[in-house]
Amino acid sequence: MTGFVSFVGSGPGDPELLTLKAVDRLNKADAVLFDDLSSGPILTHARDGADLVGVGKRAGRPSPKQDHVSRLLVEYAQTGQRVVRLKSGDGGMFGRLEEELVSLRDAGIEYEIIPGVPSAVAAAAAAGIPLTRRLTARRVQFITGHDVSGKLPEDLNLPALADPGATTVVFMGKRTFPLLVNVLHNHGLPLDTPALMAEAVSTPEQSLHRSTLGGLSERLKADVGTAPALILYGPLAEFGDD
Amino acid sequence: MTGFVSFVGSGPGDPELLTLKAVDRLNKADAVLFDDLSSGPILTHARDGADLVGVGKRAGRPSPKQDHVSRLLVEYAQTGQRVVRLKSGDGGMFGRLEEELVSLRDAGIEYEIIPGVPSAVAAAAAAGIPLTRRLTARRVQFITGHDVSGKLPEDLNLPALADPGATTVVFMGKRTFPLLVNVLHNHGLPLDTPALMAEAVSTPEQSLHRSTLGGLSERLKADVGTAPALILYGPLAEFGDD
Repeated sequence: MTGFVSFVGSGPGDPELLTLKAVDRLNKADAVLFDDLSSGPILTHARDGADLVGVGKRAGRPSPKQDHVSRLLVEYAQTGQRVVRLKSGDGGMFGRLEEELVSLRDAGIEYEIIPGVPSAVAAAAAAGIPLTRRLTARRVQFITGHDVSGKLPEDLNLPALADPGATTVVFMGKRTFPLLVNVLHNHGLPLDTPALMAEAVSTPEQSLHRSTLGGLSERLKADVGTAPALILYGPLAEFGDD
Repeated sequence: MTGFVSFVGSGPGDPELLTLKAVDRLNKADAVLFDDLSSGPILTHARDGADLVGVGKRAGRPSPKQDHVSRLLVEYAQTGQRVVRLKSGDGGMFGRLEEELVSLRDAGIEYEIIPGVPSAVAAAAAAGIPLTRRLTARRVQFITGHDVSGKLPEDLNLPALADPGATTVVFMGKRTFPLLVNVLHNHGLPLDTPALMAEAVSTPEQSLHRSTLGGLSERLKADVGTAPALILYGPLAEFGDD
């Protein structure tokens, strides 16, 4: 008898941003495998006696052993347990979901995917910024600021990313942001393009820094800090309520 | 004495995909202004006696009078009520949120924005598709398939949209999809690029159609139907569990 895995997007961190369905699955789980960013108060929704297993993925650090996480997931499910695989934000966005899905399929284990509030969407809401605007910001895009080795990816689509008519959100991009800004500027995007850095979104430690591409680049060259962050840039990044 | 407005993302339609915070605000509201796509069972979370006001926005139809919606919102708040402005998916994404925020600011009315599960994220989850993949789908982008007059927008960023290494989700794009496919194909994107159409996501009427850019274009030329839909294309659109 095999178990069942629910991939659950935990939202950005605030336990009130869990969906009702996420809470239901946490209530019923025998085991919860969680990342660092989906821990804390969110785990209070798990039932007493459930196994709570940290698998230690954290934004901005070198990637942990994904194979190990996938293997652990399969092993828990194969004991017949009802497993929740909790992923911060929405699991389908920069959560390496595919690798875990493939492992479960290969092992013949059934699963479901429960979407969550993406951290990027929560960051914009916290800052009072819509991600799109009729006529002037009709496209919104999300990228990761680092590849598997921690560097800025080499195959960036510059016409897409240097588009002054789009809103762009960079996940896990604090360290590589000065280099990204260089590249975007060389491709024609002005250094005074509005930019916003959102750290620890929706948690008690949340902080929002409004700046420009150039200003934020200088700031991050001086001090990159340790908090997980999203960086948003484009015409709407100056919109907001402070 | 003025009221307070909570902009609440309702998620894609399934009331179980509301966040705990959304349910809380619905419970407490004196008035709920909702779009067609965020109605139905979601409204059962409003308290007895709350005013439920449909403002009639529906994907795929010509845009209703946005000014009228903004004015109504201001008027409700100015009577001192606690108002929820319910928007399907996440309000910041193709929800014309900015126009309503500006109206409230101009009227000196306070508000908050509560993010929701975007319909695009829910569509991918329903189809078992991650939106990103390490190395081969590092960028995900969302666009709308029509401008204010119902036509395909003229200022499309084709290097961005014809990128075979991105996942693209088109909102409200059924009618204009054949034209979009033409344009993308002329820009080099193969007609056999995987594509998925998700209609009425997360509702009892949900249906998923797996195809290709070319195949889906032919289907929509023959019959565009009436259900609200999202179209997803890119290398990951063929991933899934059917």
